[in-house]
Amino acid sequence: MNYPNGLKKNFLINKQKIKYANRGMSLEDDLNLTNEYYREIDKAYIYKKPTPIKIVKVIFPEKKAKITEAYFDTPSTTDYNGIYQGKYIDFEAKETKSLTSFPLSNIHPHQIKHLQNIKKHNGIAFLIIRFTKRGETYLLLEKDLEYFLEHSPKKSVPLTYFQEKAYLIKEKYSPRVDYLEILDKIGGIDNDE
Amino acid sequence: MNYPNGLKKNFLINKQKIKYANRGMSLEDDLNLTNEYYREIDKAYIYKKPTPIKIVKVIFPEKKAKITEAYFDTPSTTDYNGIYQGKYIDFEAKETKSLTSFPLSNIHPHQIKHLQNIKKHNGIAFLIIRFTKRGETYLLLEKDLEYFLEHSPKKSVPLTYFQEKAYLIKEKYSPRVDYLEILDKIGGIDNDE
Repeated sequence: MNYPNGLKKNFLINKQKIKYANRGMSLEDDLNLTNEYYREIDKAYIYKKPTPIKIVKVIFPEKKAKITEAYFDTPSTTDYNGIYQGKYIDFEAKETKSLTSFPLSNIHPHQIKHLQNIKKHNGIAFLIIRFTKRGETYLLLEKDLEYFLEHSPKKSVPLTYFQEKAYLIKEKYSPRVDYLEILDKIGGIDNDE
Repeated sequence: MNYPNGLKKNFLINKQKIKYANRGMSLEDDLNLTNEYYREIDKAYIYKKPTPIKIVKVIFPEKKAKITEAYFDTPSTTDYNGIYQGKYIDFEAKETKSLTSFPLSNIHPHQIKHLQNIKKHNGIAFLIIRFTKRGETYLLLEKDLEYFLEHSPKKSVPLTYFQEKAYLIKEKYSPRVDYLEILDKIGGIDNDE
């Protein structure tokens, strides 16, 4: 299906989202709340980019422009970026239902290339991957993703690779997915070589 | 009108855009080409964020999702951000037809607040303002915007303030709007205090 992850679901069950807020929010929802929390305490300014839309038809029935035909576009970059301690932060976040591996087909090749470029230019680049059925969320630094891509012919990153190389992000009440805590702990800001 | 600057125009005259490419492209077009150029020479990775759209209705006539009702949303941040020499870059770009001043009503207050936050966290924040009828494009650092806001009750920034405090970006064939050259010259990357 040609729409971004989670969008159709969110769109259709918008009303139920509030009701179910305390059990099983999507990774996107959790990250939005986390980033909002970071902004509130003036810690970091990291935002999700809007979903790219290709607009075909706009009408002006009243004062407000109404889009009547549009399609989901392929994103040129990752979904999240911003600033933390003066450093440029960039990441992509994905959920998988698999219990054993993360399929790389979930990420566009140009998004991986983008993360490599960011790392090369001294930004902090990583993936946040949630294994929804395991209730586990990992932060995998770009260098470890790159190592995997260079050394493995596999099209999925096994869970064991995450357990070995990535960092498990503990879920908390607030912030829900405290990924900056991980970067603080591993010294990712000053030294992520 | 409730649509982002330039969008309606671009949308309607899409075919003519190619024809008129060499005379009077929009600032947005020029910046897109400039950022593409920076990426091609591996100098900086700076992108325009997608226009935020509020999707109301999506149908699935075939395999491809089709948006049949949507509206332009208020952006939460500025339009452009990215990385240059390891530093976080963030700016908003606007055109004005005025010959004498840039009306601050063209920028949302939360976008100004956003630029202040970025500066405070050691990012490089600025405005790029083009006076279309003068054919002049200026880079105004956030600190100079902030100084103006603190010391003037005016709702427009006079051209004279740009001439005094901002940096004129010379238009070239490629890159068309070489704003990183300005940052290099003024030492904006290492020291924009």
